[in-house]
Amino acid sequence: MIFHAEAVITPREGVLDTQGKAVEKTLTHLGYEGLSEVRVGRIVTMRLEAKDGDAAAEAVKNMCQDLLANDLIETYKISVREA
Amino acid sequence: MIFHAEAVITPREGVLDTQGKAVEKTLTHLGYEGLSEVRVGRIVTMRLEAKDGDAAAEAVKNMCQDLLANDLIETYKISVREA
Repeated sequence: MIFHAEAVITPREGVLDTQGKAVEKTLTHLGYEGLSEVRVGRIVTMRLEAKDGDAAAEAVKNMCQDLLANDLIETYKISVREA
Repeated sequence: MIFHAEAVITPREGVLDTQGKAVEKTLTHLGYEGLSEVRVGRIVTMRLEAKDGDAAAEAVKNMCQDLLANDLIETYKISVREA
């Protein structure tokens, strides 16, 4: 079976998100008001062949732990749907 | 009103996603099989004060055009929900 898999990787709560801070500052400088808690993360999408949905999700979880996410400062959310 | 706003910025179809290619190559090198079309994008989240949902979405759209996305090579999807 072929799946569309997605991993959303974001900074952990409480970890200083320097990118988010920089974006927030620049947006405010550009005149945008009323914004706070700007956080910048990554989204990785792929097509993935797997036995079933659970196997696909398990593979993406392992990919996050092996490469895509830094467990110390980031968390990740995985979603898988049939292609 | 306070909103949670999110912009997902991904490479346009047909544009060479060098980051995606590098991740795909590394994952394959790590032994992962059956994956293709790996694409890497950004996700920006924020809390945003706005008159209503439309105003919040409009503001985030302008932020994408002003700063968050490179219109030539990237597309963006915006979602807004009440906090």
